[in-house]
Amino acid sequence: MARKIKLGIIGGGGDSLIGVLHRIASFINDNYEIVGAVFNPVWEENINFAKQIGIKTDRIYVDFDTLIEEELKLPKEERIQVCSVLTPNFLHFPMAKKLLKNGFHVICEKPMTTTFSEAKILQSVLEENNAVFAVTHTYTGYPMVRQMREMIKDGALGKIQKVDAQYYQGWLNPVIHEKEKRASTWRLNPEKAGISCCFGDIGVHAFNMIEFTTGMQIDTILADLNYLYEDNKMDIDGTALVRFNTNAKGVIRSSQVATGEENNLTIAIYGDKGGLRWEQENPNFLYVLSDDKPVQVYKPGHAYNSELSLDGTKLPPGHPEGIFDAMANIYLGVARAIRGEAYNSGEFPTVMDGVRGMSFIEKAVESHQKGNVWLKIED
Amino acid sequence: MARKIKLGIIGGGGDSLIGVLHRIASFINDNYEIVGAVFNPVWEENINFAKQIGIKTDRIYVDFDTLIEEELKLPKEERIQVCSVLTPNFLHFPMAKKLLKNGFHVICEKPMTTTFSEAKILQSVLEENNAVFAVTHTYTGYPMVRQMREMIKDGALGKIQKVDAQYYQGWLNPVIHEKEKRASTWRLNPEKAGISCCFGDIGVHAFNMIEFTTGMQIDTILADLNYLYEDNKMDIDGTALVRFNTNAKGVIRSSQVATGEENNLTIAIYGDKGGLRWEQENPNFLYVLSDDKPVQVYKPGHAYNSELSLDGTKLPPGHPEGIFDAMANIYLGVARAIRGEAYNSGEFPTVMDGVRGMSFIEKAVESHQKGNVWLKIED
Amino acid sequence: MARKIKLGIIGGGGDSLIGVLHRIASFINDNYEIVGAVFNPVWEENINFAKQIGIKTDRIYVDFDTLIEEELKLPKEERIQVCSVLTPNFLHFPMAKKLLKNGFHVICEKPMTTTFSEAKILQSVLEENNAVFAVTHTYTGYPMVRQMREMIKDGALGKIQKVDAQYYQGWLNPVIHEKEKRASTWRLNPEKAGISCCFGDIGVHAFNMIEFTTGMQIDTILADLNYLYEDNKMDIDGTALVRFNTNAKGVIRSSQVATGEENNLTIAIYGDKGGLRWEQENPNFLYVLSDDKPVQVYKPGHAYNSELSLDGTKLPPGHPEGIFDAMANIYLGVARAIRGEAYNSGEFPTVMDGVRGMSFIEKAVESHQKGNVWLKIED
Amino acid sequence: MARKIKLGIIGGGGDSLIGVLHRIASFINDNYEIVGAVFNPVWEENINFAKQIGIKTDRIYVDFDTLIEEELKLPKEERIQVCSVLTPNFLHFPMAKKLLKNGFHVICEKPMTTTFSEAKILQSVLEENNAVFAVTHTYTGYPMVRQMREMIKDGALGKIQKVDAQYYQGWLNPVIHEKEKRASTWRLNPEKAGISCCFGDIGVHAFNMIEFTTGMQIDTILADLNYLYEDNKMDIDGTALVRFNTNAKGVIRSSQVATGEENNLTIAIYGDKGGLRWEQENPNFLYVLSDDKPVQVYKPGHAYNSELSLDGTKLPPGHPEGIFDAMANIYLGVARAIRGEAYNSGEFPTVMDGVRGMSFIEKAVESHQKGNVWLKIED
Repeated sequence: MARKIKLGIIGGGGDSLIGVLHRIASFINDNYEIVGAVFNPVWEENINFAKQIGIKTDRIYVDFDTLIEEELKLPKEERIQVCSVLTPNFLHFPMAKKLLKNGFHVICEKPMTTTFSEAKILQSVLEENNAVFAVTHTYTGYPMVRQMREMIKDGALGKIQKVDAQYYQGWLNPVIHEKEKRASTWRLNPEKAGISCCFGDIGVHAFNMIEFTTGMQIDTILADLNYLYEDNKMDIDGTALVRFNTNAKGVIRSSQVATGEENNLTIAIYGDKGGLRWEQENPNFLYVLSDDKPVQVYKPGHAYNSELSLDGTKLPPGHPEGIFDAMANIYLGVARAIRGEAYNSGEFPTVMDGVRGMSFIEKAVESHQKGNVWLKIED
Repeated sequence: MARKIKLGIIGGGGDSLIGVLHRIASFINDNYEIVGAVFNPVWEENINFAKQIGIKTDRIYVDFDTLIEEELKLPKEERIQVCSVLTPNFLHFPMAKKLLKNGFHVICEKPMTTTFSEAKILQSVLEENNAVFAVTHTYTGYPMVRQMREMIKDGALGKIQKVDAQYYQGWLNPVIHEKEKRASTWRLNPEKAGISCCFGDIGVHAFNMIEFTTGMQIDTILADLNYLYEDNKMDIDGTALVRFNTNAKGVIRSSQVATGEENNLTIAIYGDKGGLRWEQENPNFLYVLSDDKPVQVYKPGHAYNSELSLDGTKLPPGHPEGIFDAMANIYLGVARAIRGEAYNSGEFPTVMDGVRGMSFIEKAVESHQKGNVWLKIED
Repeated sequence: MARKIKLGIIGGGGDSLIGVLHRIASFINDNYEIVGAVFNPVWEENINFAKQIGIKTDRIYVDFDTLIEEELKLPKEERIQVCSVLTPNFLHFPMAKKLLKNGFHVICEKPMTTTFSEAKILQSVLEENNAVFAVTHTYTGYPMVRQMREMIKDGALGKIQKVDAQYYQGWLNPVIHEKEKRASTWRLNPEKAGISCCFGDIGVHAFNMIEFTTGMQIDTILADLNYLYEDNKMDIDGTALVRFNTNAKGVIRSSQVATGEENNLTIAIYGDKGGLRWEQENPNFLYVLSDDKPVQVYKPGHAYNSELSLDGTKLPPGHPEGIFDAMANIYLGVARAIRGEAYNSGEFPTVMDGVRGMSFIEKAVESHQKGNVWLKIED
Repeated sequence: MARKIKLGIIGGGGDSLIGVLHRIASFINDNYEIVGAVFNPVWEENINFAKQIGIKTDRIYVDFDTLIEEELKLPKEERIQVCSVLTPNFLHFPMAKKLLKNGFHVICEKPMTTTFSEAKILQSVLEENNAVFAVTHTYTGYPMVRQMREMIKDGALGKIQKVDAQYYQGWLNPVIHEKEKRASTWRLNPEKAGISCCFGDIGVHAFNMIEFTTGMQIDTILADLNYLYEDNKMDIDGTALVRFNTNAKGVIRSSQVATGEENNLTIAIYGDKGGLRWEQENPNFLYVLSDDKPVQVYKPGHAYNSELSLDGTKLPPGHPEGIFDAMANIYLGVARAIRGEAYNSGEFPTVMDGVRGMSFIEKAVESHQKGNVWLKIED
């Protein structure tokens, strides 16, 4: 490693949890230094936050456009190389687009855009500009999720015949049953949060996990969503049947009114040679099933794991790493890509994940609205 | 208890596992004695089996009709009071019907019949004949499943808003991929096993568990089944979206090609006040979830459990009871009903469970065949 | 199987839980019929209990001596063949001894005797009388405990280097802290319960589990017990260091004041080739560890298990069996022994287990009293 | 926060895992910047490592003494404030001592010293120099371990009556059985690793966890260690009986030949009002036991947790944090102490933990050598 990659941060100030997650992830593998930022649209909060977290304030900018303008004035070797876009959802698209057009690499929070058509535009902008672009489907950074992908790629499951992914949370339960509360929750406001709450926010992770681990593309879906109250305009629960263009089928289940659930993302994949099960809340245990042998429990850091999995583990077996480490693995892959080093395609999710994710969200809502019909996922 | 109930057994001889399950269940609470049987249609095997398990052979009959005929000749106090029907599926209906018409109580293996219309006939026969009739949805006999039912009845979950039941097995995986094997498996032969394999055999358990624990009736379903091969005429996997006539929704997932799964029946129910999760392979642990309190793990035999749950536990906490004990609990309830003692409606599944189960199976297949449309469960 | 073995029961009437356990265990494999009994020393309760559980009353006797006297008058083919001794602890020895001397086989509840010297006498009586004798260390009947034994015997762990067994309960916590309560608890009364409470009642199970699974004999122990209060004369908690005459060492931990624990018996055995872990409250999962391979989870009923393990499973994988089934496996082995059929030495614990167990209990107390010195286990 | 604390690093270069752990921990809460270091005694490796991880090289020093000398020349506001000492064990003491004497704060890896007498010297040096000193018993930084401490402090367990801590690893199994391998392993060389391997390296963590969570001091111990081979001079396994000066007792179990175990540190504490169980490999689950209520599973980030616990969680419930986060919590507490901010005494282990830990190690070895006698832990 010659020297640290110059990282800019857009958003993520104040109490932002996503800001903490990205910042720590950028530190973990000694690859990045934060050199510039717009943490907050309010200048005083912006600058104070920079001081609070110990970032030099000379390249804290008043707004996003100024950041780009000023950085472009700097010599290339001093300039921000990659920006993490952590702003409210509707800003991801215009900011990512402008960054790409001005020669910056981009690490974009999820959802990549608010519509599929925006996603397609971003995809073409990226094609026109030779940049590194990552969407932070954080869960793909877990060593055992990577292990799933590599085992499936290597044929450990044979031909996939069944997939099942779940993402259950309960955090909307204390909100949804009171009219005023649900009216004042931004996630339930289509103007602020896009066309979907539950599927847009977490269902899409379950979708992405299936495609990431299997390496297969879901062909069509049929979704039934739940809004619970007539005045609620956003899905807060739902199930999507899924089909591949093989004979495999499956299901994606997602809820934010699964009362008492925290962040219960699970995935199970079954092929004709074996099965795999993984749970996000116990991320260091991967269950490998077969017709006739004992269940095997894979854990990170062992030599029996794939290279991609081992690359994402820093300590010996038995030292639990967590979600910061998962995100850090994505940042590590991006760093390699920016430096032009070799990296595995599984190291970070790309614009294609974002495009397909947006299609999934739109088709799920459309399928529901049209009376639960099958619709094709596009990319 | 005055004296043991006189039990007859139809089927369940030889290597029959269901025979073992019912026989042990009948013994466990000291309520039954097996006085008559047709264990096997082949006389020699029938009589030898009786000897092998130490049953007196004087009331081992050559066939079902003879059993009825001869038993009716006996004085009422010596006669078989209740028959367990453990024969191949297509015989459940005619045998149960004839038994009821001749004044016998019936414990009927699942599926109760092979069609919904048969189920309705059986229901009306039962109404005409004042008898006790149980369908052995064994899993409802587990103390922690009973606890779910009672907690929900007592309002612990508030208003139900989401249900999710899964029954995954993998046993068909070694069979389904070879044409000859799948052609020669009776479960995959519609003539022998009815119109459905996966949903008929196990999906219906998941359906029943939802209705048993919630005390609610599923209103409509939309199912997508998987057959994997064109020459395979029976579903071996599938998912059903479910709706209630409240605003609750949910999903039933079932597979026999979930490679490596053994008997992975799980159920999760969420209401506006809490959630419950249970897994059949760890039946003595019930997880109780809430918005803001630690997850609670209920275990059998504690005073904090409901009467119905405690009634199904014989030993103090920490002494694992299993599936034989679950079935024994159903037999215990049936015994009470036969004796005219008080019993809780949750002690054994009734003809209504059988009727609704058959409707579920038929509607799932029909929904799939018609292109995944919503159909109403009837009873 | 020609016909059922004629079983007598001594004790186990009324609310006795051990009575339920033995009775059900005797039924489960169709091997036994209860033909005679003294369920209770009070005649009315004795006879009423027999009626209540549906046992014919003609061979319900007024007391133990009468049972023996009257049974001996019967022709041999009608006579009780084996008696289950379920009486208070101090009666196990004299009853078992008399039964053996009069030609009966014996299934003896634990502890086999109240002292080591009694145990030795019983051992010699047994040697003089050619009978089948089992001590019901129930936990050895679990399929996965049997699997441990067979795997170790087959060398899967290599040379044993470390053992660790725990038996933690909390039931004495609500009792021990109030002087009156602890004074009135029979388990804490040396006159009624012998010299040890915790080690005598449950520590000895942990001891037995180590010897049963490893096939090795513990050579010496050093124990430190806890009585918590000066007026309490019985150990309610303690730890024993153990040594073998190889270089292996280990530990036995036992408590009845581990507040909130139910019946938390665990065992872990480590050799130079692998390790094994098992927990009684999840008895159908056996964890197999190695230096460099994923942990394997063995479950009952799979073809990969040993014959001895598979012999103790009645249903396919995924159908949880429990403690009644474990005890039933012991009864099954005894039945084979009585019939002179072949059986594996692991099918039931013998008088030697009883002898060594009594030595363990006495040496633990003596070690503690002498200031935590090493003492040799005798047999 | 005014600005970042100036951190120096001694050791931890190259492939050092402990270096990664400390470096990341220092970054996580935005409190530290690494301004100076001696990563490696070989200059070229030292300077290359600094470049590799993107640290400015102007204050990378040739050796420890130079670091102190040169830093002292700097104005106080530029100077290193705190040094993390990550060198081989025997250097911890002299370096920590010199740092303290020269006005630096110290974060010292474990073991703090190689002997108890060194530990006492360090303690008095610290008393003479008003500095912040932390020993990195990392596991105390887990939110659920902190929760144990606070719950016990608040009386949730009542009076403690039983403690049980285990630290089992298997990594020495592939080493210990071959004479050459064990002769060439530095951990097994008393000259390099001190008087104890297993107890010195990991048993002491178990000891510390008991004292940290209970807030009580272990009074006396009796240990039995295992060396397995005569030519092996270092304990690789052992058990210590422990007593408090209350009537509580307990046990510490530790092994590095528990084949297949990774980093299996567990702790169970029982009082007259409840019990607690925690496992390091599933650090985000704390089991709270009681006489008569369901087991409760506490998880990080919920409002029901103590302040000290919540302070150690960065993300909402269900986002697993791991061992880097645990260490980061310790660094966070140290930062507060250095800045003179308020902090809870549980935020980082102090010199007293180091002193008592060294006494534990020495007394364990002495107890074993003297034939398993009781010895008093000193401080």
